[in-house]
Amino acid sequence: MANEWATFGSDLHLELRGPRLRAGLMDALREAVRSGRLEAGTRLPSSRALAADLGMARNTVADAYAELVAEGWLTARQGSGTRVARRAEPRRAEPRRAAPSRAEPRRAEPRPAGARPSRTSAPVPAPALALPRPAAPAHNLKPGTPDLASFPRAEWLKAYRRALTAAPNEAFGYGDPRGRIELRTVLAEYLARARGVHVRPERIVVCAGFMHGLMLIGQVLLNRGVRDVAVESYGLGLHAGLLTGAGLGTPVLPFDERGTRVEELAGPGLAGVHPGAVLMTAAHQFPLGGALPPDRRAAVVDWARASGGFVLEDDYDGEFRYDRQPVGALQGLDPERVVYLGTASKSLAPGLRLAWMVLPESLAAEVAAVKGAVDWTSSAPDQLAFAEFLASGAYDRHVRAMRLRYRRRRDQLVAAVAAHSPGTRVSGIAAGLHAVLTLPPGTEQDVLRSAAWHGLAVQGVNQFRRPTVPATLDGLVVGYATPPDSAWQGALRALCQVLP
Amino acid sequence: MANEWATFGSDLHLELRGPRLRAGLMDALREAVRSGRLEAGTRLPSSRALAADLGMARNTVADAYAELVAEGWLTARQGSGTRVARRAEPRRAEPRRAAPSRAEPRRAEPRPAGARPSRTSAPVPAPALALPRPAAPAHNLKPGTPDLASFPRAEWLKAYRRALTAAPNEAFGYGDPRGRIELRTVLAEYLARARGVHVRPERIVVCAGFMHGLMLIGQVLLNRGVRDVAVESYGLGLHAGLLTGAGLGTPVLPFDERGTRVEELAGPGLAGVHPGAVLMTAAHQFPLGGALPPDRRAAVVDWARASGGFVLEDDYDGEFRYDRQPVGALQGLDPERVVYLGTASKSLAPGLRLAWMVLPESLAAEVAAVKGAVDWTSSAPDQLAFAEFLASGAYDRHVRAMRLRYRRRRDQLVAAVAAHSPGTRVSGIAAGLHAVLTLPPGTEQDVLRSAAWHGLAVQGVNQFRRPTVPATLDGLVVGYATPPDSAWQGALRALCQVLP
Repeated sequence: MANEWATFGSDLHLELRGPRLRAGLMDALREAVRSGRLEAGTRLPSSRALAADLGMARNTVADAYAELVAEGWLTARQGSGTRVARRAEPRRAEPRRAAPSRAEPRRAEPRPAGARPSRTSAPVPAPALALPRPAAPAHNLKPGTPDLASFPRAEWLKAYRRALTAAPNEAFGYGDPRGRIELRTVLAEYLARARGVHVRPERIVVCAGFMHGLMLIGQVLLNRGVRDVAVESYGLGLHAGLLTGAGLGTPVLPFDERGTRVEELAGPGLAGVHPGAVLMTAAHQFPLGGALPPDRRAAVVDWARASGGFVLEDDYDGEFRYDRQPVGALQGLDPERVVYLGTASKSLAPGLRLAWMVLPESLAAEVAAVKGAVDWTSSAPDQLAFAEFLASGAYDRHVRAMRLRYRRRRDQLVAAVAAHSPGTRVSGIAAGLHAVLTLPPGTEQDVLRSAAWHGLAVQGVNQFRRPTVPATLDGLVVGYATPPDSAWQGALRALCQVLP
Repeated sequence: MANEWATFGSDLHLELRGPRLRAGLMDALREAVRSGRLEAGTRLPSSRALAADLGMARNTVADAYAELVAEGWLTARQGSGTRVARRAEPRRAEPRRAAPSRAEPRRAEPRPAGARPSRTSAPVPAPALALPRPAAPAHNLKPGTPDLASFPRAEWLKAYRRALTAAPNEAFGYGDPRGRIELRTVLAEYLARARGVHVRPERIVVCAGFMHGLMLIGQVLLNRGVRDVAVESYGLGLHAGLLTGAGLGTPVLPFDERGTRVEELAGPGLAGVHPGAVLMTAAHQFPLGGALPPDRRAAVVDWARASGGFVLEDDYDGEFRYDRQPVGALQGLDPERVVYLGTASKSLAPGLRLAWMVLPESLAAEVAAVKGAVDWTSSAPDQLAFAEFLASGAYDRHVRAMRLRYRRRRDQLVAAVAAHSPGTRVSGIAAGLHAVLTLPPGTEQDVLRSAAWHGLAVQGVNQFRRPTVPATLDGLVVGYATPPDSAWQGALRALCQVLP
């Protein structure tokens, strides 16, 4: 995901640097206003003209303008076009924006007909003459990224050196689209031991991230005539977006206090849609944090068996369980009906682009064929280095060290919230790299605004709610793994300041 | 691409290890017959039963059986099923098959209605009682892969170590989908200097191989409403296949002795189809080896300007020109109408999965958006290592050293062919890692069979001919870069043995 969205030239020449164009354009415009490069009162080009300049769809620009008007950055009046809003606060130069997390930036989601208005989309009065001064985030508690400062450079380099030295010449050639056999062999051993995955190396396909794996399996399901993949009520919009972008429907499973109501896969909850697969974060729901209870684990596998469907298990942070034994992978219940997707992005680093799928026998050849049809794999030296890293025990040592560190942070988070905001419930804390802080009804948006004011990047649970799901929860999703150790205490203090 | 297709168990349990299932199944069956694991006379399972066992389409299995019958490996008789053919030669254990090249294995291509029969698809009489004994290739002159034994491990490791040590923490996080700015910056400098590419870092998108780049640009063109991308008469079927797989038509430009007839883009040669782009190997036609002459370079850019189309320039081996200055990239003629695609797969190693696109301003944001939508990039440490490798001059040194080595091999090839087969013309030798040996009309298939018999893996020009193009050339495509130094002389001798 992009982290440097735009730079301004003298002629309003934006250099978009990221995928989510509208969000990027909004960031760029906010930044230009914030830094004073766009002065109050300046008239912006028409959305049509700017879209043409940028090679973007006009709607994208128009939507960005509209949202920035809603946020108070811009004003729009009939006949006078779109202008930069006047502000009471003096400008100041802003430091460079912090890196983003895996979790997506907020998207304005279309409100479905009949759904009650989302609390998160209540418009801010605009134009704001005394706009709150937004600060560039000094603190980052957005979920989805491990502590990057803890990447074990020396150990990784050692593994890389060994792997590169020992690699056969053919490793530098075009490879098996499933990935290097050396890596698949040690991964199979590791996944069986650490995650209870039932696996042989032949069933593993190495991919360049969870999204890559999801794209591959989505393509295979489409080829098989599957039309819909059910998703959970809360999750990453990017994942559902990838599926819909590929042409699959994404009916949403309802959610209750025990988690995702998987029984609705065969029930009336999907309004007659019969999905061919369901995407789940069974071991640790993202973002709400619970583990799917045993009866529902059994039920979702039973559904897959009875219907011929598949469970796509997103086991993104299965290594990080603090208070008891890890919840084993759902895949162990039925390896022929569950596609297991794991990643090194949380346990090690997203920048390595290493992830893996464990496939049912019936899908393995098709997934390899789809992957091979575009002939890319992860870099072979990286795969061999990761194999060496796993085989040498360096991975286990790193995960253990990080588990201790994250657990300490989690305990500090719980203690700090209890001390500063006794009414705030902290949940989803048994595992993973994030927690959910439940807020009083209707206050999420205010707290997020306050966080932005205090220079704290954090996300609300409603930013992960599927568009068709009614808003019933208010809360923050706090990624306590994200900051480096040096920034953790400051981030925690900032968080406590914004809690009610 | 996969190089280990199958292993046999006692119950005919194939473990397919590659994407092109039919070819892989054929390899597996040939190998099983060759090694004696499937004895002469053995009855094979029905195509339906084997397909079910393998999770493959029945047609795939039936086609593989039919081709193997045509090749004489199997027999098929009404009422007695498909059996292993009897052979006069004694069995012998075969060494492990050599690694494949970038160039695809031969595909049986459907013959278009009205096209005259291809000389390459003349059926072999079957069942063959005295089947020529096929040898596992001992020598590999298939095009598309550099000498993997020459990968500069020590220099690469040095660059990797430096890069990993100097990397900012954020490099281990989710990154800009366009790739690391450090790499794009040095690539821009290098491409301008070495390939005459007109480029700024903002216009570069790093991708995981040429096919990945082609997939991205194909998606963007589709999103823009483009329906057809013209291709050359000869090329990699994988590339055209990727485009057709994405839903694009691939009308074929005719070819004459001066190369691809680009003037037909605006002429009657495409039968009324108006492609939105054309995929070209302008600097070094693959596989025939010529450079597009200057007037046609100008013409294809003029077409793009006039029609609003794009030229997709596959500059796969632009660094390797032997007898004069490199032919500069077509992109330099009009950076707004040419998408430049380059790769480290020939200059360094395919296993690194590093390639790059240089995009027109109008496409840059869209390509980044499509790439970002599945959020994968090449590994950040690899990108930083490659940036260091380029910036330190190690890349230039490596390319210079390999250029000398490949040139020496090319000269040896030309001399050996002149000595052993004076009637064979060697062409396409000014550049690149392969040459074309023109054969007497109608003899390509015989020579390929003889090569297989002599344990020489090599490909014929007709294996790269688009299905709708009439067969008018017979020749071998000899990848002289492929073998390691230790195997080069033996491969050359084997080649001379099979030439007429």
